[in-house]
Amino acid sequence: MALKAIFFDIDDCLFPSTRFAELARRNAVNAMVEAGLKGEPERVYGTLLKVIKKCGSNYECHFDVLLEEMRVKRDAKIIAAGISAYHNTKTSILPFPEVPRTLVKLRELGYKLYVASEGNAVKQWDKLIRMGIYLLFDDVFVSEEIGCEKSPYFFAKILKKLKLKASEAVMVGDRIDKDVASAKKAGIFTVRVIQEGKFTREKAVRKEEKADCVIKNVGELQKALKAIERKSRK
Amino acid sequence: MALKAIFFDIDDCLFPSTRFAELARRNAVNAMVEAGLKGEPERVYGTLLKVIKKCGSNYECHFDVLLEEMRVKRDAKIIAAGISAYHNTKTSILPFPEVPRTLVKLRELGYKLYVASEGNAVKQWDKLIRMGIYLLFDDVFVSEEIGCEKSPYFFAKILKKLKLKASEAVMVGDRIDKDVASAKKAGIFTVRVIQEGKFTREKAVRKEEKADCVIKNVGELQKALKAIERKSRK
Repeated sequence: MALKAIFFDIDDCLFPSTRFAELARRNAVNAMVEAGLKGEPERVYGTLLKVIKKCGSNYECHFDVLLEEMRVKRDAKIIAAGISAYHNTKTSILPFPEVPRTLVKLRELGYKLYVASEGNAVKQWDKLIRMGIYLLFDDVFVSEEIGCEKSPYFFAKILKKLKLKASEAVMVGDRIDKDVASAKKAGIFTVRVIQEGKFTREKAVRKEEKADCVIKNVGELQKALKAIERKSRK
Repeated sequence: MALKAIFFDIDDCLFPSTRFAELARRNAVNAMVEAGLKGEPERVYGTLLKVIKKCGSNYECHFDVLLEEMRVKRDAKIIAAGISAYHNTKTSILPFPEVPRTLVKLRELGYKLYVASEGNAVKQWDKLIRMGIYLLFDDVFVSEEIGCEKSPYFFAKILKKLKLKASEAVMVGDRIDKDVASAKKAGIFTVRVIQEGKFTREKAVRKEEKADCVIKNVGELQKALKAIERKSRK
C-alpha cells in the first residue's frame, strides 16, 4: 500500500457545519423574538449575519452586538434565550451518516487517520467529542496548536512530526484554498468532498486547485483512494 | 390580602444548584481523565475546587488553570472533554419537583411572583429559561442589572420600581446574609428554605438573621405565607 495516512477536514467534511450554524442562528433568533425582541425573524437573522461578519465567528458576544445594531436596550432575558437556543442546537451535532462506518472501515484497511483542521483547538476538539468519533483518529492537528494557518507549511510540519513522506498522505476536505491547494503544494494527494456547505459551489480553475479526486461524500473515499493508488503507481 | 409580592432566590431555592455544580464538575473531571489527563479523579476534583476558589466561579478558563496547577501541558482534547461534559450537565438543570406547581398555585391565589437574584444577569436568565419556569414570573431582578449586590438597598430599589410597600412583600431564599438579613433590613418579610446546598447548615444567631418562617422546601410556602399574614394582622 502506497498511501498510509488520511487527513480529514472537520467542517462540511465530517459534519454539515454550515447547515448546523444556520440552524443554530435561526433557532437563536426565533427564541429571542419569542422572548420579546421586536422584529421580523428573517430581518433579525440578516442583521445577525452582518454582526457575525463584522465581529468574526469566534467572537463571544454576537447577541449583545445584535441588540446594539437594532438599537434595543441590552436585555439579559433576550440574550440568554438566544444563547440557550444556539447552544442547544450546536451541542446536538451529528456526523454525516456515512462518516463513522467509513472511518471504521478505513482503519480496518490499515490506514492511519488524522484530523487536519483550521481554527480554535478546543472548539474543534469539542466537535469531535460531541460527534463521538474522536477515538477513530490517531491524532488531531489544529492550526492554532501547529502555530500557522492551514498552509503548505502546516502540512509540512505535520508530515515531519509523523515521519511520513508527502506521497504517503491524502488530504480530504471541502475547501479549494485550505484543503486542496495547500496540501497539494506540500506534495500531498487531495480528495475534495462536494457535499453541502458554503464552499461546494467554488470552482477549481487553476491546475493547483484541482484535487486528485472529487467525491460526493466521505462514503466514496475508499474508491477514491484506490484510484489515487492506481494513478500513483503509474 | 396583606401580602402581594413574593421574591424568589434562584440557587438552592428553585433548583439544587450546589448539587448540579458538583455533578457538572465531577463529570468534567471524569471526562478529562478519560481523555488522557493523568490523575486520580478525587484528587483532580480537589485541585479543581481550589482553582474555582482562586479564580471565582464565573471565570471562563478553569480547566486551563487546572492543567497549569497540575503542571500538565495545555491539551485542547482534555479541555474540550471537560467543557463538553460540564455543559452537558449544566444544561440539564431541573427545578426542585414541587417548584412549578407551587408557582402556578401562588399565581392562582393572586400573588405577583418575582425573581430577586445575585449574579450575572444572562447566566441567571439562562437557568430560568432552561428550567422552563421563566413565564411564571412577573419580572426578574438580578443584582448585575440593579447595580448593587443583594443588599437592603437592592430590595429598596426593587420595591420602589414595583410601587410596593415593604410590608406587602416576602423574600424566599436559602442564604442568611443575602436573602434573610438584607431583605429584613429593607422591611420585607422573609422565608428561609433549608432544603439542600452550601448554606443549609448556616445558623441564624442574631435577631436580624432570623427569618419569619423556615421551610423545608418551596412546596411549604403557601402555609408559611398564611402564617406571616396571620402574624402581620396582629
